Parts: sequence; structure tokens; C-alpha cells
Amino acid sequence: MGTAQFVLLADDPSTFVTRVVPFIDIELAGIPGDRHYGLLRPADSRQKIYKRGTPIANRRQISIVSEEECALIAQKMNIPEVRPEWLGANMLVRGIEHLTELSVGTRLLFPDGTGLICEGENLPCVHPGKVIEQVYGQEGLRKKFVPAARKKRGIVCSVEREGVIHTGDTIEVIRLP
Amino acid sequence: MGTAQFVLLADDPSTFVTRVVPFIDIELAGIPGDRHYGLLRPADSRQKIYKRGTPIANRRQISIVSEEECALIAQKMNIPEVRPEWLGANMLVRGIEHLTELSVGTRLLFPDGTGLICEGENLPCVHPGKVIEQVYGQEGLRKKFVPAARKKRGIVCSVEREGVIHTGDTIEVIRLP
Repeated sequence: MGTAQFVLLADDPSTFVTRVVPFIDIELAGIPGDRHYGLLRPADSRQKIYKRGTPIANRRQISIVSEEECALIAQKMNIPEVRPEWLGANMLVRGIEHLTELSVGTRLLFPDGTGLICEGENLPCVHPGKVIEQVYGQEGLRKKFVPAARKKRGIVCSVEREGVIHTGDTIEVIRLP
Repeated sequence: MGTAQFVLLADDPSTFVTRVVPFIDIELAGIPGDRHYGLLRPADSRQKIYKRGTPIANRRQISIVSEEECALIAQKMNIPEVRPEWLGANMLVRGIEHLTELSVGTRLLFPDGTGLICEGENLPCVHPGKVIEQVYGQEGLRKKFVPAARKKRGIVCSVEREGVIHTGDTIEVIRLP
């Protein structure tokens, strides 16, 4: 059992950085108003089996990071903290051990019945490193992000059951048999 | 690499039994005209984490069985054959070893770029047993189906990339890293 410490939204079209909100609506296509909303999305370098730009099912609608793993990234980068906003996360959770290593197909259940499906590790890319470097004004910091974040950068999820997720909601983790 | 020996459609509303067709259209919501078509479907006894009837994402749009595993079911049931039609399958494949044990998240790629996502084992239920008993006119045969079909009844898939799948298409199996 975990807890949603914060829920966040990427509703500024100029950046992937998210901001804390009191709740997020969860629809089959994702979080309305968020930059990752949509039933389809163009394939990118993460899906090398499809030509870049091919419309594919959007299984990266919601991204989740954990307090515990963010602390480990910060430690490896030798900085005070790594905030979920800088990673473009939609949720910061506490109490789910090794969040990033949850198997594809694991279900996350919320109090009102909202259900998310884990689609696997969110492979670290270079963009959060740039934000972190800017925040701390420490040149070269960006390069430390990807190696520090491997297997700690959280997961992406798709929606199984629509609903609303609030700050402070408990999260039940249901693993595949 | 496998092959789609047959593609099939469940377009008779009175039964789950499928029939062989030359090709199946693949949309984000499944196969148009098939009884499992839809972006959403009501939760049933397979999804005990949701109240029965709750609308959830349809991850059971397309069902696939293998020639090799159907032969093993037939052998265990002591009958000449088990046809994909009787299992309500949308595809009979050849050449994918242990099809039913493919991990959730495995991708199946077809020649025109169509992509399916394995959503896991299709747990055997009682209905195909009834069809098989009727076909062979052998009372009691129905009870042999579920035990004989465990880990051999194939998988369910959702759609990642739309397209068309034809009889005889090759299938590339892309496993998660």
C-alpha cells in the first residue's frame, strides 16, 4: 500500500515540467489538460519498432515517481533534492518499494475505484537533467541525471478505470499472479 | 517468428464461436464487427478488483491461440482436434513457442506494421468445453476442457498500431528487455 503525496499536471504547453494540483481527473485517454493526454500518440525513439511519428496507442499517459527513488537520484547527483515537477511526473508516491521495477501489467487502485495499469519503466532522457542544472545553476549537472536515474525514474501508466485521484489518496498495488 | 495460419471473426451475435475470414481489420478499439470490439468493456469475473459491470479499458480485444497448444489440448482431452473457432479465437498461429506464456507487454508485429500488445494468458472458462462436447457428441467431454487448456488456451491482446492482418502473415515477436 502506498500514498499519492502529490498529484501534478503538465498544462503549460511550453514545458514538460508539471505543477502540483489538488486532484487530477483520469479519463481513458489520460489526464485532460495534460500534455500526454490522448488515446493515440506519435511513436518516438522509445518505440523503435515503429517508424517515428506513427500513431500508436498511448501507453504513456500518466507518469509516476517515488519519493524514495527521487531521494536516491538526488544522492547520486549530490544535490539536496529532485522534485517530481522537474521530471514531468503526474504523481509522487510514497511507500511503494522499487516502484520503477514494478512489472508491466501491475494494477494501481485508488480509493474511488480509479485503476491504472503499469506499462513499465520510464527510461530516463536528457530533459530533466537540463531543468535540474538550471535550478541549481551548476554547470555540467545535467550529465549526471541519466546515469543516476536508471531504474529509479519511475513508471508510466495507462488508464484501466476512469475516476479522480486526489493528493493523499492511498494506492493499492495489485501484482500479476 | 510465427505465422498467422488463420484469422477469424466473432460476428454472429448469438455465439462466441468465430469463423475464418481472409483478413481482419485492426482498429484501436479492436476488430470492427467482432463481439469483443470496443475501447471499454464491462468488468467480469476475470477482473475481480472492479465491481462486475464497471466500464474498464478493453484489453481483451483480440484472442490468439496456437496450433501447437491446441494439439496438446486435444491430446489431453483425447479428441482428434481442437479448432480455433470453438475457442472463439481471432487468430491461429504457428511457430510461436509457448504462446500462452508470453509476458504481458510482449509486442506482436505484422507485415503492414500492425502491432498488438500481449495482455497475458486467456484463462480457460467453461464455454468452449460445451461447444467441443456438442461437436463430438460425447457426454461429459465439457469437463475436460478447463484442466486440459490451462497454460495452453492462448493469449489476449490489445491494439498498439492499427492496420490489417491477413491469413498467412508473418508475426515478429518482440519481447520486453
